[in-house]
Amino acid sequence: MANKVLVAQGGGPTAVINQSMVGAVLESRKFRNVELVYGAFHGVRGIVDEEFLDLTQETSHNLELVAQTPSSALGSTRDKPDLKYCQEIFKVLKAHEIGYFFYIGGNDSSDTVRIVSEEAQKANYDLRCIHIPKTIDNDLVENDHTPGFPSAARFVAQSFMGANLDNWALPGVYIGVVMGRHAGFLTAAAALGKKFPDDGPHLIYLPERVFDIDRFLADVKATMERYGRCVVAVSEGIHDAEGTPIVVKLAKEVEKDAHGNVQLSGTGQLADMLCDEIKNKLGIKRVRGDTFGYLQRSFVGCVSDVDQREAREVGEKAVQYAMWGKQDGSVVIERTGFYSVDYRLAPLEAVAGKTKVMPDEFITASGTDVTDAFRLYLRPLLGSGMPDAYRLRQNLVEKVLKK
Amino acid sequence: MANKVLVAQGGGPTAVINQSMVGAVLESRKFRNVELVYGAFHGVRGIVDEEFLDLTQETSHNLELVAQTPSSALGSTRDKPDLKYCQEIFKVLKAHEIGYFFYIGGNDSSDTVRIVSEEAQKANYDLRCIHIPKTIDNDLVENDHTPGFPSAARFVAQSFMGANLDNWALPGVYIGVVMGRHAGFLTAAAALGKKFPDDGPHLIYLPERVFDIDRFLADVKATMERYGRCVVAVSEGIHDAEGTPIVVKLAKEVEKDAHGNVQLSGTGQLADMLCDEIKNKLGIKRVRGDTFGYLQRSFVGCVSDVDQREAREVGEKAVQYAMWGKQDGSVVIERTGFYSVDYRLAPLEAVAGKTKVMPDEFITASGTDVTDAFRLYLRPLLGSGMPDAYRLRQNLVEKVLKK
Repeated sequence: MANKVLVAQGGGPTAVINQSMVGAVLESRKFRNVELVYGAFHGVRGIVDEEFLDLTQETSHNLELVAQTPSSALGSTRDKPDLKYCQEIFKVLKAHEIGYFFYIGGNDSSDTVRIVSEEAQKANYDLRCIHIPKTIDNDLVENDHTPGFPSAARFVAQSFMGANLDNWALPGVYIGVVMGRHAGFLTAAAALGKKFPDDGPHLIYLPERVFDIDRFLADVKATMERYGRCVVAVSEGIHDAEGTPIVVKLAKEVEKDAHGNVQLSGTGQLADMLCDEIKNKLGIKRVRGDTFGYLQRSFVGCVSDVDQREAREVGEKAVQYAMWGKQDGSVVIERTGFYSVDYRLAPLEAVAGKTKVMPDEFITASGTDVTDAFRLYLRPLLGSGMPDAYRLRQNLVEKVLKK
Repeated sequence: MANKVLVAQGGGPTAVINQSMVGAVLESRKFRNVELVYGAFHGVRGIVDEEFLDLTQETSHNLELVAQTPSSALGSTRDKPDLKYCQEIFKVLKAHEIGYFFYIGGNDSSDTVRIVSEEAQKANYDLRCIHIPKTIDNDLVENDHTPGFPSAARFVAQSFMGANLDNWALPGVYIGVVMGRHAGFLTAAAALGKKFPDDGPHLIYLPERVFDIDRFLADVKATMERYGRCVVAVSEGIHDAEGTPIVVKLAKEVEKDAHGNVQLSGTGQLADMLCDEIKNKLGIKRVRGDTFGYLQRSFVGCVSDVDQREAREVGEKAVQYAMWGKQDGSVVIERTGFYSVDYRLAPLEAVAGKTKVMPDEFITASGTDVTDAFRLYLRPLLGSGMPDAYRLRQNLVEKVLKK
């Protein structure tokens, strides 16, 4: 059997994707049958271009430092390989005598692994193909959650914790737009920044529910009347009853990526548009919108230690499954306690190309808040050392002039 | 002499403004001549409305926790008092027998303290008025730097460190828009996220230099040709040769705040507009823009310990100057070593209403980068525990198919 290992990273970077890469590399280097460990530059693109790094020559010390560094140290790609592309991948793997292929990515990447695995079987070439989960969207089926999501969720929670404090000091409407095309998990994480009953986010809009602009305006108005201020968390993926993204309804130009998806991130359009609606229709003057953009997936210095550990472990486990098993598959995370996890290898076709969204039990009947079940689900993932916000106690002084 | 202390917070919140408030409160409580320590809700607005909290009843334990919490725990205001407003303030201070007035804020707030001080002198009322410096813009004259700036600068540096890693993994153009109307210090802090020579930000645009859209496009094009990617830090305050903000040139509606200033923050317009220029004029496809917005001043969990300590000390020193001195004034920070600071009381009129911008020695001749002098100036302010980014060493594997 071919005795080289190839590791690659695909899709959007996360704060902990390098933990998975380093976990796979260091674990591979422990196996005596492994001759060399390669890394592909820029995911599948680097494979077809034969752009490989020899990671066997890398020091374990530097690997540990890279593991702590956010974003994809091997580079990534948005290419979504079709059958022909996957055949090219397989040709290169064979030419380099790769016996073990590990691809760290989301559901598009798992589908690539599935096709490459099938090509190898057709050619009767002995290749273990393992998909290692990663996505801040938390939308991989079979998984309790996915590496990368907890750290991004922590960034979102901490952002809203600060935005709420800022909005309390200078009241008005604040809208924070969070990543997540179909799944609202990351937007919902904003709720974990709340402490006191009147804290924001007061309203949370998820792609799992239909977004109605008139209801939105009524919600904001009611919140302003109740609290004198309003903090709103909005998913970039909110859409109308027909499924048309709200941002598309207003964008003059719609950019599409290689997957045929509408480009939602990297612009402030949605936040600006919602702010304009509030200013114009409700006559509120102080309305501010932030789009968290790329900060939420690659900010350095806001990482969940639980996420780091699990991302490392899925990389390690992938290698163990590959070396000791006879099956290709996708490593999945299962929750076994409050809080502990274990891992298993699921069939690739069970994960590939599928999308998980928030279950109904995580969303309140109003559709604009999360339930305690969601809080209990997310809290342990955020890790240790979560910051906390404190207030002055309200010992009011009696007025002298205006009694 | 009136023996009550009043503390208030004005202008935009910062990550450490509560340190100054708590420093002033705890130090005041040590002086035997002080009867009560009040805090005004929402700055000068709370004073004229007689909205006071009795902070003498607050526990030192809770004060310490509030000190660690970003944003203004007493609330803030954007009101910029004129003479009549200041006379109202003075009337309330007198009615409540306030003998010591501490106002934490930027140059607008220092001007308020100056006028109130003059009113008290005219009325022959014994009142010590001390301005405590605060602003993420770092634009107060007389000060080496201002509390709040180092923590915001750290957020900006860490953001660009992550954005650069993300942009390396998925190359293209990335623009991050940073706060700062007239002073570019905070935008320039993006440079402190750089480590390797080819790291971004590759271009930095400051309000201290005239922004020319054609030169900007040529700079981006040249950077793309050199590195295959381009990370840009842009100040929200960039303007043309006539001083017109670039965002105003393109905004349909221009919102102005109570100070008559154009609203620059809280929208993604500038980033989106610059991205569109690059897409349309340079034909680059992957162009992303983030506006850091309110995250940079109130993010919870990215604070400089140096900033925390100094913010605390300016609050303490303000009380000492008030109790032991006969002069009103503004506490200023002076650098005395690499790295140490000391404090002194400057006359209010030396600070009030004035704006400091980046000195020429901090900006390179190209106008799109900072000098080592600036790096040396800023680095110690960012505090301990700055995260660091690591790369894999480039041990390339020889190609087999495409030799």
